[in-house]
Amino acid sequence: MLKGELKVFSGTSHPELAAEICSYLKKPLGKASIFKYSNDNTFVSVNENIRDADVFIIQTSCAPVNDNLMELLIFIDACNRASAGRITAVVPNYPYARSDKKDQPRVPITARLVSELLTVAGADRVITIDLHAPQIQGFFSIPLDHLTARHIVAKYFKKKGTSNKVVISPDAGGVDTVEKLANLLDLPYAIVDKRRLGNEDTVEARGIIGDVKGKDAIIFDDEISTGGSLQKVVSILKEQEAKDIYACCTHPVLSGPAIDRIKKMPLKELVVTNSMPIPQKKRLPNLTILSLGSLLAETIKRVHHGESISALFK
Amino acid sequence: MLKGELKVFSGTSHPELAAEICSYLKKPLGKASIFKYSNDNTFVSVNENIRDADVFIIQTSCAPVNDNLMELLIFIDACNRASAGRITAVVPNYPYARSDKKDQPRVPITARLVSELLTVAGADRVITIDLHAPQIQGFFSIPLDHLTARHIVAKYFKKKGTSNKVVISPDAGGVDTVEKLANLLDLPYAIVDKRRLGNEDTVEARGIIGDVKGKDAIIFDDEISTGGSLQKVVSILKEQEAKDIYACCTHPVLSGPAIDRIKKMPLKELVVTNSMPIPQKKRLPNLTILSLGSLLAETIKRVHHGESISALFK
Amino acid sequence: MLKGELKVFSGTSHPELAAEICSYLKKPLGKASIFKYSNDNTFVSVNENIRDADVFIIQTSCAPVNDNLMELLIFIDACNRASAGRITAVVPNYPYARSDKKDQPRVPITARLVSELLTVAGADRVITIDLHAPQIQGFFSIPLDHLTARHIVAKYFKKKGTSNKVVISPDAGGVDTVEKLANLLDLPYAIVDKRRLGNEDTVEARGIIGDVKGKDAIIFDDEISTGGSLQKVVSILKEQEAKDIYACCTHPVLSGPAIDRIKKMPLKELVVTNSMPIPQKKRLPNLTILSLGSLLAETIKRVHHGESISALFK
Amino acid sequence: MLKGELKVFSGTSHPELAAEICSYLKKPLGKASIFKYSNDNTFVSVNENIRDADVFIIQTSCAPVNDNLMELLIFIDACNRASAGRITAVVPNYPYARSDKKDQPRVPITARLVSELLTVAGADRVITIDLHAPQIQGFFSIPLDHLTARHIVAKYFKKKGTSNKVVISPDAGGVDTVEKLANLLDLPYAIVDKRRLGNEDTVEARGIIGDVKGKDAIIFDDEISTGGSLQKVVSILKEQEAKDIYACCTHPVLSGPAIDRIKKMPLKELVVTNSMPIPQKKRLPNLTILSLGSLLAETIKRVHHGESISALFK
Amino acid sequence: MLKGELKVFSGTSHPELAAEICSYLKKPLGKASIFKYSNDNTFVSVNENIRDADVFIIQTSCAPVNDNLMELLIFIDACNRASAGRITAVVPNYPYARSDKKDQPRVPITARLVSELLTVAGADRVITIDLHAPQIQGFFSIPLDHLTARHIVAKYFKKKGTSNKVVISPDAGGVDTVEKLANLLDLPYAIVDKRRLGNEDTVEARGIIGDVKGKDAIIFDDEISTGGSLQKVVSILKEQEAKDIYACCTHPVLSGPAIDRIKKMPLKELVVTNSMPIPQKKRLPNLTILSLGSLLAETIKRVHHGESISALFK
Amino acid sequence: MLKGELKVFSGTSHPELAAEICSYLKKPLGKASIFKYSNDNTFVSVNENIRDADVFIIQTSCAPVNDNLMELLIFIDACNRASAGRITAVVPNYPYARSDKKDQPRVPITARLVSELLTVAGADRVITIDLHAPQIQGFFSIPLDHLTARHIVAKYFKKKGTSNKVVISPDAGGVDTVEKLANLLDLPYAIVDKRRLGNEDTVEARGIIGDVKGKDAIIFDDEISTGGSLQKVVSILKEQEAKDIYACCTHPVLSGPAIDRIKKMPLKELVVTNSMPIPQKKRLPNLTILSLGSLLAETIKRVHHGESISALFK
Repeated sequence: MLKGELKVFSGTSHPELAAEICSYLKKPLGKASIFKYSNDNTFVSVNENIRDADVFIIQTSCAPVNDNLMELLIFIDACNRASAGRITAVVPNYPYARSDKKDQPRVPITARLVSELLTVAGADRVITIDLHAPQIQGFFSIPLDHLTARHIVAKYFKKKGTSNKVVISPDAGGVDTVEKLANLLDLPYAIVDKRRLGNEDTVEARGIIGDVKGKDAIIFDDEISTGGSLQKVVSILKEQEAKDIYACCTHPVLSGPAIDRIKKMPLKELVVTNSMPIPQKKRLPNLTILSLGSLLAETIKRVHHGESISALFK
Repeated sequence: MLKGELKVFSGTSHPELAAEICSYLKKPLGKASIFKYSNDNTFVSVNENIRDADVFIIQTSCAPVNDNLMELLIFIDACNRASAGRITAVVPNYPYARSDKKDQPRVPITARLVSELLTVAGADRVITIDLHAPQIQGFFSIPLDHLTARHIVAKYFKKKGTSNKVVISPDAGGVDTVEKLANLLDLPYAIVDKRRLGNEDTVEARGIIGDVKGKDAIIFDDEISTGGSLQKVVSILKEQEAKDIYACCTHPVLSGPAIDRIKKMPLKELVVTNSMPIPQKKRLPNLTILSLGSLLAETIKRVHHGESISALFK
Repeated sequence: MLKGELKVFSGTSHPELAAEICSYLKKPLGKASIFKYSNDNTFVSVNENIRDADVFIIQTSCAPVNDNLMELLIFIDACNRASAGRITAVVPNYPYARSDKKDQPRVPITARLVSELLTVAGADRVITIDLHAPQIQGFFSIPLDHLTARHIVAKYFKKKGTSNKVVISPDAGGVDTVEKLANLLDLPYAIVDKRRLGNEDTVEARGIIGDVKGKDAIIFDDEISTGGSLQKVVSILKEQEAKDIYACCTHPVLSGPAIDRIKKMPLKELVVTNSMPIPQKKRLPNLTILSLGSLLAETIKRVHHGESISALFK
Repeated sequence: MLKGELKVFSGTSHPELAAEICSYLKKPLGKASIFKYSNDNTFVSVNENIRDADVFIIQTSCAPVNDNLMELLIFIDACNRASAGRITAVVPNYPYARSDKKDQPRVPITARLVSELLTVAGADRVITIDLHAPQIQGFFSIPLDHLTARHIVAKYFKKKGTSNKVVISPDAGGVDTVEKLANLLDLPYAIVDKRRLGNEDTVEARGIIGDVKGKDAIIFDDEISTGGSLQKVVSILKEQEAKDIYACCTHPVLSGPAIDRIKKMPLKELVVTNSMPIPQKKRLPNLTILSLGSLLAETIKRVHHGESISALFK
Repeated sequence: MLKGELKVFSGTSHPELAAEICSYLKKPLGKASIFKYSNDNTFVSVNENIRDADVFIIQTSCAPVNDNLMELLIFIDACNRASAGRITAVVPNYPYARSDKKDQPRVPITARLVSELLTVAGADRVITIDLHAPQIQGFFSIPLDHLTARHIVAKYFKKKGTSNKVVISPDAGGVDTVEKLANLLDLPYAIVDKRRLGNEDTVEARGIIGDVKGKDAIIFDDEISTGGSLQKVVSILKEQEAKDIYACCTHPVLSGPAIDRIKKMPLKELVVTNSMPIPQKKRLPNLTILSLGSLLAETIKRVHHGESISALFK
Repeated sequence: MLKGELKVFSGTSHPELAAEICSYLKKPLGKASIFKYSNDNTFVSVNENIRDADVFIIQTSCAPVNDNLMELLIFIDACNRASAGRITAVVPNYPYARSDKKDQPRVPITARLVSELLTVAGADRVITIDLHAPQIQGFFSIPLDHLTARHIVAKYFKKKGTSNKVVISPDAGGVDTVEKLANLLDLPYAIVDKRRLGNEDTVEARGIIGDVKGKDAIIFDDEISTGGSLQKVVSILKEQEAKDIYACCTHPVLSGPAIDRIKKMPLKELVVTNSMPIPQKKRLPNLTILSLGSLLAETIKRVHHGESISALFK
């Protein structure tokens, strides 16, 4: 369908990324007021005419996660009732992506619930990056553009040189993704073998499946949260006599003790994207931030003009 | 339909109220784990079999509002996927009730959005109390039991005696509700006449429509938030030579400067319900809390057994 | 989205208004046949190609209410199956607006039901005027443009002069709306205080809250039906020594004994809009009809072109 | 599913049939108030507790068709919001059954629309009799019990004796149904051959396909409306020297000039069911009314108890 | 709505028809890969950008019916997830059209089910030809263009001359359609009178209703399957001394013993359309195939450009 | 909810499994007729009353996959229209499970499509075993019981003894599942490292990540199809000097050249479940079939009685 004017709005979660996107698109950011009433109720008001417009709302998932999600849903509702032509939720870090299956009795599948919430609020489509599991695409009945930061990460490491390196999956669940990165870099990969002990809550890293001795290791995961898991992986890699260690993830949650832990790790470099905001105080000297701004902006442009997105990854 | 076992669960918003309800029903509280992961994602796990059960989840809206709402939605999803027979969300203070219409361009109707979120998450029915506008009932396509605390409030004031009293609506929007309370108490009512000044954001109380001079005034509103509006109402009532002043509301938000302001007001008594938790430090000496526990418990019992709820208000 | 040709059709409820709208838009009325078969089944046939067109159907609610509503639903179904690009129901007087909440046990919320009927029939959006309660907007998940005739009414009374006037709400439920009109006119307002007597069906007007003595009174309500309520309001205003009395409403139902009653009332003027047709025999000498034609036509034009509607009310 | 108490309610369309059904079921009719407000809005209030009940609402389609349909929809909404366990619409004559296909450009399929209206209002299932086309069953996604009066009609004619009789279909569209009745009676059938003349609106009966000379003819149609079509059929049968002529239909609309016309026809007998009410003044001496009361009541009983309906027609 | 580029794709059921359509439209066939994995799972991949495009997928129903249907559903899903602007399923022979009603207890209405499957897969509209019953249009809530081959058939027979001919309906269910063809040809029609014998499964042709003696007969049905029914019709026509016999249908299933049977029948000519592919070996000397290619192509063109389809049949 | 009688029906895909289940449950198999008409349309008729019954339909996915899926959908539709109380699709091998994500541009997510098809046909819940990815659970909004055969497999291998064994994942995508089996057996695991060569369609096994030398290897995958992938895994295991080799899968597709290939492999044993039928001729001497009959029957029993399913896996 031919579409109305392209308009980009931003929630409060990641204004810097929204600004970067608007700058790439040479578009002013759409005008909106967002605040909380004294009863802690979130309020959104769109302050310019958006009838028939092709609206993109940039809102990533980061703490406070539920506030950011509800703000996005409310923003979508406001746009829908204001007769926007089409509403695309641009969610670089998808909320609740790790709650993607019932692996215990009587637990929710919140990643599916979120897809329903976005749809019922009125989103017409979604753009996101590096879902914890690619199957989450199937949680949506509306079209979803699932981008990946792997090519940006691979390009970065290729520039550094890939000789004598190995990609590390911190657990069995991540092997599929790690293999894809290893393919892009034409590198081997290895897996940290973790087992639950008698007590359900404790996980033990039993060793590494694959060769790391004397090699530089690139640990890759979709998200780094408290750094507890990373700590164990780094320490077992050192035990197994890996050389330089790089840690890399798309979604840098870096919550709680993460920064303190990372400071103490023998990490050559921590490479992340800006799918979530990283406050200045968390920006350690060995932190490299790869920007997703152009990728997202170019995607928005192509979605607006009906051009191929897959062509971006060739 | 004949139903499975009645089971009551509680979110984390108001455990005391849930306990009170369970005690009335002589039922143990259902077992569940609720916490946040280190990436700030809420998690709920139901820890007992609920297949075919008639599940009631107690979760009111209070700060942090979005956390409590998402927790409720996730709880419902978990129950739904665990094959609960029927799921009733018991939400004494309905979230976003004041966002019930588009009174400005391009704003959301979040109270309707919330009804959709509850429904899509899998709620089969909802129980709530004193909605900001009774029309919110029509936002639902699933059955909703809309209770009122007015009878409990009226009973309380009747016991005190109603001679020479008048009920006060703090604004035009609340007159409809105030009239209903005045009817129960067989009292006259009056309205504070507020007007917006040139600047849209400032509201001026121009006076009172109706007679208050020499009378005891019962100010009634559905919610008291920062107390700013109440402050103006009390002061204008004093100007107009009202005698004793009572303030009364169903939903005691009491946020920000509320307690400090109320302390300084010449209030004879502040009468509220426990639709929201009131921490000990907010319990001023002139605060009276009327409990909704029996009303909610009795309603749950009747919903479970298919007995009339309206009979409760005769 | 860019849209196909604008086409305006009319149901049988209010052809004059449709003609006025078409004349403003400089568009011929769309061709359609509408009649009842001998088995009393309504039939609609659209007699020109409407594939991809931006269709607006003008159909207000007036007696016979159910015939007019079903005719509208059937018209929408015909347009949908004929592949109209977009279908907007233009319903100046929204049917069943007063059935907007459950204020008794086991009653319907027909205003919500109507929103579902319109949506399931295939309406993409709705335009309406002065809903009995603005919350009815939230009954819709499709976009709704809620216009108001208050500015037209206010302009009319401003031209007459507003000195020494007061706006009257005939009951507590209407205060919110009356306050908005009073604001536009910068006038005070007062309320008729009604109470139900022992018997549920009898309502007694106990007096007036606010000052009317020696003032000209403008009674404002969304709808005047049999005039019974108006009769009581006028008589109590006279008791309270109001001077000139104006009655004013958006939706002039004027059913049953209305005209006879109004003839006998000491009304200076009855001011209404043409949201419903008023047959010649009901046009009393003191009746003033303010036309909504331009407002509706301009709204249709803006909806078609994606221009702001709220700008119309500034 | 095991079900709550069986409760039968009646709309205002056909109280006699409802009474007959209740009498068969030995159940009192459910208490409800149904009336129109002075603004012509239909109102329904259920006056007894129906929580969890297995509710059947008897409402046929007859003039005023749209009033009866809206009343049914509103009744269903009231029951749904009152937490009925299951709601079955019992609609002996299905409204708009003849609007079952698009046989011209840009017309509605109102029979499908009605199925959507019933479903969105909250009906869980439908019981109806002798749909104009059996495919209308497929318009529903909810279960529908499609009964037929053919067995009752066949039994009646069998008692009279079937020798030298022929069943007549008044047009090509009805042959399928007529064949079924002919099968039950083990009789031949014939068809009136009608053609549209140059002008689309005029239909000419060209003759009869099949043998009628010297035979008694039983004309069978689902509905007799103004009797105009019947008039032509009778006259052509007479031309072709048929002997005694019986006319028979399930749904006796008998509108407009029907009774006057029928009075003048050389009809031995007019046999109909009471799927619609027949006022006393339309009960001509040669009219026979076969009651559907027991069939409907027995069906309701079986639906309530989960017993086979098809067994009724063996 | 204004639309993106017109693109035509083909499933594997009838590539010749798709080629014919593309040739008429002067459009290359859209690129796609369709195959089955070794686990017998169908796979579809669209091999060109279709964002915003106006996509038409040509897929008729023919053996293997379920494979062709699932392939179509999967194709639609792929297009939907690839952000097609609009998806039209072009299904000349509608699958399961004969399963259009419950004429026995506890059977499906698969034609309705298919409409739901197409809709849930993401089809925005459907184009089909000569449905077994026109009421199947009402199984859809999305727009459906129901074409007919009757005009093409009528034109063919008119060219041959219509003197002394009669159109034959092979059973009561087909009379309605046969009458429409007879009208176009201005011919009389007759019906084969079939009855079920004691045993439900055996059908006996008792004779013919109407005159065929000495006339040329054109047997018309929507579908010819094994030819068993046709065999009986031809033989009874011969008994009744019809002269030349033509058989004609829209959908030439011609399965199992059909060709062998037809070879042996005294048929002057078998006239069918190419709504289904007819392999070379089934093309008997007396077979005439009338192409639907231009009709379908012209319809697609008009649907794309928003022009009237009904105008094609005037 | 309390439920009607438990009734088990079987599609035509796997009658032996259905018989086994019925035998465990001590229930006769429900009566139904299933066949194809001569036009290749599938037909299902339920031959006993199922009103209000708790119906379970056993139908696995195996070739012909689309026939079996459509048969299941049609069966569900028949049950739904026959007023079944609840319908559970028991689908041991879920169709299209491997089409669970968009890993190329413009491909379908057929596993999600299938979940929609089942839901729209009227399934109330689903029981399945060892989904290719556990996230497929999230494709459903209706409750799904996801069982696993891993415990049955683990028990079988434990009985054989687990000393000096290693579990092998044939590719990166299967590691997650293999780890779970390895955990149950308390064994290490290893992964076959495959890479796509320049040409997208060729996959090369580069080696094994982890230690297999001198160990017995248990290759585990969810499905074995043509055996081509297994062939490569076995050969690389032999190269790496593994000792005895066991191949094991839940879903034994064994299509095309599978049996010939397996015959030639140095396999100690091929262990599979009966989630799909295995014809006699495919039953090689080294084939072991573990039955899922009791697991499924016990699950059905518990679902019917509202008992915990997770308790089965403790």
